[in-house]
Amino acid sequence: MTSIAMIEAAAARLKGHARLTPMLSSPFLDEIAGRRVFVKAECLQHTGSFKFRGGWSAVSALPSEARARGVLAYSSGNHAQGVAAAAKAHKAPAVIVMPADAPQLKIQNTRDLGAEVVLYDRVGGESREAVGARQAGERGLALIKPYDEPLVIAGQGTCGLEIAEQAAAEGITRADILVNCGGGGLSSGIALALEARAPDLRVRPVEPEGFDDVTRSLAAGEIRQNPSQSGSICDAILTPQPGEITFPILSRLCGPGLVITEEEAMRAMALAFLRLKIVLEPGGAASLAAALFRPDKIGGEAVIAVATGGNVDAALFQEALSRYA
Amino acid sequence: MTSIAMIEAAAARLKGHARLTPMLSSPFLDEIAGRRVFVKAECLQHTGSFKFRGGWSAVSALPSEARARGVLAYSSGNHAQGVAAAAKAHKAPAVIVMPADAPQLKIQNTRDLGAEVVLYDRVGGESREAVGARQAGERGLALIKPYDEPLVIAGQGTCGLEIAEQAAAEGITRADILVNCGGGGLSSGIALALEARAPDLRVRPVEPEGFDDVTRSLAAGEIRQNPSQSGSICDAILTPQPGEITFPILSRLCGPGLVITEEEAMRAMALAFLRLKIVLEPGGAASLAAALFRPDKIGGEAVIAVATGGNVDAALFQEALSRYA
Repeated sequence: MTSIAMIEAAAARLKGHARLTPMLSSPFLDEIAGRRVFVKAECLQHTGSFKFRGGWSAVSALPSEARARGVLAYSSGNHAQGVAAAAKAHKAPAVIVMPADAPQLKIQNTRDLGAEVVLYDRVGGESREAVGARQAGERGLALIKPYDEPLVIAGQGTCGLEIAEQAAAEGITRADILVNCGGGGLSSGIALALEARAPDLRVRPVEPEGFDDVTRSLAAGEIRQNPSQSGSICDAILTPQPGEITFPILSRLCGPGLVITEEEAMRAMALAFLRLKIVLEPGGAASLAAALFRPDKIGGEAVIAVATGGNVDAALFQEALSRYA
Repeated sequence: MTSIAMIEAAAARLKGHARLTPMLSSPFLDEIAGRRVFVKAECLQHTGSFKFRGGWSAVSALPSEARARGVLAYSSGNHAQGVAAAAKAHKAPAVIVMPADAPQLKIQNTRDLGAEVVLYDRVGGESREAVGARQAGERGLALIKPYDEPLVIAGQGTCGLEIAEQAAAEGITRADILVNCGGGGLSSGIALALEARAPDLRVRPVEPEGFDDVTRSLAAGEIRQNPSQSGSICDAILTPQPGEITFPILSRLCGPGLVITEEEAMRAMALAFLRLKIVLEPGGAASLAAALFRPDKIGGEAVIAVATGGNVDAALFQEALSRYA
């Protein structure tokens, strides 16, 4: 079970390795949202997403013999790169199980970071957990789960420690913190950090239409599944259901989920380009889309959107610009 | 004459208003350059360029009566936005003289920041200095020059104070600091800050082919002019010649200039998109282009490129991605 002490310990292991990402803003975005909008730019984290935090937290905590045997992760792409980069820095071999339909950029980057990539057929119904467990068992690798792993949650929680400090510096004491949510590792990590450090900042998960398992689970008080596992441009935050470890944390600490459309994510990407000069992938822009286009569902004078990643293929980014910039 | 004390005073006035921009990196860029590459991401500064620093420094130093009458600036776009934003925050009226062929985004943003924009014909030969002086005289406005102004140089120098600290944190004690250079305000400000704080970090101005007035002036030991004043996509760093105030500083403190092509600037924009998740305009990417594509002209194990701005029209950015990403 992840505690604030574990998050602080992860922050100590990440110090000098992870980047303290800036919190950005623009008067043009404030005007659209009708309140002050701050964007925690995790796309500027190493490997282009917050996942580097959890990957580093888990790899750096492994006993040295386990590290030398190597690590295994399954991921649609951002956790893959985070674990691969952390493993490389620790000289640990890394095997990453990725869906064959993941964005090419994410697959290529993972390989270029020195990891062995094993592709599986997501649409055909093969479970990544099964592929991962088989590989881990056969090769004696330490499995680093993408979200249902206390050390990974602790690593993502370091983002929450930064938000608590940065919000205080901006004079924000009470606000919704919008977090793009797949399995809930980042949302639960940030929520735990804020519970200890800034209890009036409340995490609200954000999901794309059709993949709102967390929002529905929070409303129902029990875990609900998505009908399908792929088919959204928000590839980074598609998971079948909230995690077994993360859901109780989300349930206890988070406010209601928010749901946005793919079109709104693309519009948010274009606005982040124009106004913040950062590159977001669709799943990384969902939180900003909610901040801008769901003003009635958000309270307070300020809102913080965690922009979780920027690993987007150039063609899709160009499409967002040609349609909305 | 700008001194380190003036730069420190500017830093005190900017504290809590300007953003401490991050220094980014990627192993993929290191590999291309053959050394460690750090990118000081001034595109993430308010208004999308470092010019906010100088604008704030000058406006905040005005006596309150002068501020109430208002300020005037001439600029191809980034100084325009920097001064407009600083003036707005200080409740000072702002008139900005801009070339009619400046990027639409820059003109529109300047208007949206509350400034009155006066367009002039750059190609037809009208001098912006003449237009600016006439407007300032008629209306009693305080002219804020884009680079030949000690308070502006001091403001840009605050970027150098940050570089000195950030380089030390990365263990960089001796390196070339590549700075996109128009009139030389940023280059001279950073050079003065580094002279005091990190004398083994050496500024090297970077310019596009055909507009290498600073590079040729440094080589000649006296001011040289560019044959033309427009016609490059690197609009942010096109000036007829180095400034009267900036040139002696550049001449005393900077290493030789570097010259890159427009194509290289576009390739650097695509790589910054892919590897750093930031948006650069061509003139803001020239320094990164030099870091990546002129390795033989740079010394040392690490290089720092100041990515000066990100105010690029979407169509041109899309062109960079479709050609090079």
